[in-house]
Amino acid sequence: MRKAHVSIIGAGQFASVMGNVVAQNVADSEDFDSRIVMYVYEPPLQSGRSIAQEINENHLNVSLQPPMQMRENLVASTDLAQCAASADFLIFASPHQYLEALLEDMKVHVKRSALAISLSKGFYFEDGELLLATAQIETALGIPCLALGGPNVADQIASCELAETTIGYRQREHALPFCKLFGNATFKVRAIEGVEGVQTMGALKNIVALGVGFAQALGVGSNTTALIMRRGISEMFAFTKLFFPDVSFEFLLESCGIGDLITSCTSGRNLRCAKAFALGHAEQVTWASLERTMLNGMSLQGPLCLQQVHKALSKREQKRDFTLFEVLYQIAFEGAQPALLLEVLSHNMPHYVVI
Amino acid sequence: MRKAHVSIIGAGQFASVMGNVVAQNVADSEDFDSRIVMYVYEPPLQSGRSIAQEINENHLNVSLQPPMQMRENLVASTDLAQCAASADFLIFASPHQYLEALLEDMKVHVKRSALAISLSKGFYFEDGELLLATAQIETALGIPCLALGGPNVADQIASCELAETTIGYRQREHALPFCKLFGNATFKVRAIEGVEGVQTMGALKNIVALGVGFAQALGVGSNTTALIMRRGISEMFAFTKLFFPDVSFEFLLESCGIGDLITSCTSGRNLRCAKAFALGHAEQVTWASLERTMLNGMSLQGPLCLQQVHKALSKREQKRDFTLFEVLYQIAFEGAQPALLLEVLSHNMPHYVVI
Repeated sequence: MRKAHVSIIGAGQFASVMGNVVAQNVADSEDFDSRIVMYVYEPPLQSGRSIAQEINENHLNVSLQPPMQMRENLVASTDLAQCAASADFLIFASPHQYLEALLEDMKVHVKRSALAISLSKGFYFEDGELLLATAQIETALGIPCLALGGPNVADQIASCELAETTIGYRQREHALPFCKLFGNATFKVRAIEGVEGVQTMGALKNIVALGVGFAQALGVGSNTTALIMRRGISEMFAFTKLFFPDVSFEFLLESCGIGDLITSCTSGRNLRCAKAFALGHAEQVTWASLERTMLNGMSLQGPLCLQQVHKALSKREQKRDFTLFEVLYQIAFEGAQPALLLEVLSHNMPHYVVI
Repeated sequence: MRKAHVSIIGAGQFASVMGNVVAQNVADSEDFDSRIVMYVYEPPLQSGRSIAQEINENHLNVSLQPPMQMRENLVASTDLAQCAASADFLIFASPHQYLEALLEDMKVHVKRSALAISLSKGFYFEDGELLLATAQIETALGIPCLALGGPNVADQIASCELAETTIGYRQREHALPFCKLFGNATFKVRAIEGVEGVQTMGALKNIVALGVGFAQALGVGSNTTALIMRRGISEMFAFTKLFFPDVSFEFLLESCGIGDLITSCTSGRNLRCAKAFALGHAEQVTWASLERTMLNGMSLQGPLCLQQVHKALSKREQKRDFTLFEVLYQIAFEGAQPALLLEVLSHNMPHYVVI
């Protein structure tokens, strides 16, 4: 029986860690070819050598800081058309903003029988609708696309700390091959029906983390933190339902829901930068300056997502149902004092509700 | 119209903080008498004065460290029979272990028309069944009893930090007076149908916090912490359903569910002591020694609850469905190495599940 081929699109930190997970799983597989291909977009390095060369000759991804050791059965390629054409399973792990251009270059090459999965966390708001990576991929390539998301801090997965993730599928039979590609003794996969919730919650949880970061700068204790996270979950779900009414309640309790939320609200970039943003409010610290000083120029997902959410809610005239998201937008982008967060929550919640 | 009388049974820290919340709410109320009564059990103080005297003359609860300022319309009493007889609304906030004796002394005095609410977090396993405080109160006094629970760290409520709580009711019309007694601008109440889930989750979340504490001692990152908390929620719910099959899924997303869990797993006594327990494993640190050194002799709820849970699951022969709870029991009480936690979770979870 012919073994299936796997390509990964992207060579950033998460792509590389996931690439190693997949490379290990296919090494002695009955189902998959033991070599996986990773598409690397690159300008040549200063040394004259290329990132792909370094990966293929020294098994070292030198585009990362620190460089990451790659498994020997992972082969880098700069030929996107070939990566697309050879793949039975396509794993998208490139930053969301490059997706459209990549898809444009890939679409004539992809096998009609291929399946894709998106590891991206983010969405765009376009013509009044939320545009998810899975939908972009399905539309451009004409093949089904699943989604993966969970509390998956890359370096912790790389060091084989126990973690779990959620794969969202639309057709049950599509889930199994991806479960086999990703699941292992320390990286546990739960596959559930539905691709939208996995992606919206993966993006929206970063907004809630901003809220927890602002609140921490204000010195709140654990009661208030828990309230903000719970309020956040409720707005995450309500926002998801606004655009994708079929997403079920059960999603919230999966690793892509509360699992990912817990991780993002107890550690991570959005939390840290939001705290610094609120503490530096008087000195007019900006998101751009924080990205430079705290993230080595990497972009922060939470503020980007918050802008998309604000745009989407404004267009639909539904801002008033999203008290938390809206006050976070005012603090993050309209110069409001961080303390407004607690004022608004106190004033907008009734003293009691009987349900 | 006659105004209703409120009594609080208990004068510990949580009872006192809640007493002040209620005292403020009744101060100018149409519905309630403006004086509330707090039952104080006491041996006389060394000074010859009593705790009740100090509260009534100086409005200071000197039984707490540091002493707490009490509202002037809160009156202390050492006469349990009178506290019981005068009350239209009875608030139980004494430690669970004194409840049986208190009820025995109160039962002939309580008004038949009174309503009760339990603020206690804990349960006992007796004759193969879980015995909740609400059931004990209802059986002994013959009046309905509601339950209150949430991420409610007492000193944060006392300093008016924003917080929320859940009141569980069996009959909707019983919820409103308690909502009015507890809800205010910074302490928000959501009342939902059902009393069992509020109490079981309030108790079980302490077990999960032990797990997070053990894991932190092992140096795990946020991926694994999120996994343990999510696994914890799932066992909390399964355990609850075993004894109370009617408890609905929605409970998990209330403040008494994930809200309280988040607080307990990010701060609090059980988390801190479990971390110290695991770090001191080689030196055979015990729960009793930690209670002495870290808690001034106060007892830790998590280990007590874990013993009840273990007893309940053993009797029902259902230990194998509760992998997390059982490995925590082995570490907490049977001398197992803390590292067993991660080993068991890794080995017992399949690489993937398709749901």
